Amino acid sequence: MPNDEQLIRDLIALWMTASTKGDLQTVLTLMDEDVVFLVSGQPPMRGRDAFAASFLKMPLDQFHLEATSEIQEIQVNGDWAYCWTHLTVNMAPDVTSNPQPPTSNPKVPPRRSGYTLSILRKKDDKWVLFRDANLLAPDPPTLK
Amino acid sequence: MPNDEQLIRDLIALWMTASTKGDLQTVLTLMDEDVVFLVSGQPPMRGRDAFAASFLKMPLDQFHLEATSEIQEIQVNGDWAYCWTHLTVNMAPDVTSNPQPPTSNPKVPPRRSGYTLSILRKKDDKWVLFRDANLLAPDPPTLK
Repeated sequence: MPNDEQLIRDLIALWMTASTKGDLQTVLTLMDEDVVFLVSGQPPMRGRDAFAASFLKMPLDQFHLEATSEIQEIQVNGDWAYCWTHLTVNMAPDVTSNPQPPTSNPKVPPRRSGYTLSILRKKDDKWVLFRDANLLAPDPPTLK
Repeated sequence: MPNDEQLIRDLIALWMTASTKGDLQTVLTLMDEDVVFLVSGQPPMRGRDAFAASFLKMPLDQFHLEATSEIQEIQVNGDWAYCWTHLTVNMAPDVTSNPQPPTSNPKVPPRRSGYTLSILRKKDDKWVLFRDANLLAPDPPTLK
């Protein structure tokens, strides 16, 4: 049996790979139905359905989502755990479906990075995300 | 004996009143020595000493700190807990010490608000802040 910390690492890895593939159905299995996401400048996003609606607004037909998560700490206490990570998200133009993408698209967020602090719960022997604060912010422009 | 949830509410209330008084020594008693604070666009702030250094940079000789925290949820699990709050912070010119304060000061942050997600631990029968993600962002300018 893998230990709880490894199970949480697996959850985060699966979240990243499923997100980059646009596989919403898999991502939804990794969160509690009553999950709450906190981000800067917006009201809390409550529930799995709200996450799905937000995910579907990403222009994944034109852009390829790249996301990496570096886990900084995981602490498990019974059926509860917390972890914090450093997350990087980039929306790269999808040159396969759009050989000549526009050079700029104001709707597409720039490369963003920042820390996340998450609470997870173990329900029916399976870890799921329960509360999440996401400090992603646009990266400074790169000098060219 | 007050229950753990009430003790955490008391901790947050004391944090707010001590902060607004500039009472750093009291605020420091409310956090673990190895606390980590996560904010947007900056590296993690690790440890009580780093918090103290940051607190002392606030221009509390010229401005009066106003801070309110509305607790949204507290969950206790043994010696661990998490809570999330909606926080509002304002730096108001201190007209007592500066009867004619400058009308604008670029060093002073505007009114900010946002959510926080925090992990607390109970050590030696006393709750302390252990991990904190702070989503404070400047409020939109008020129409005049």
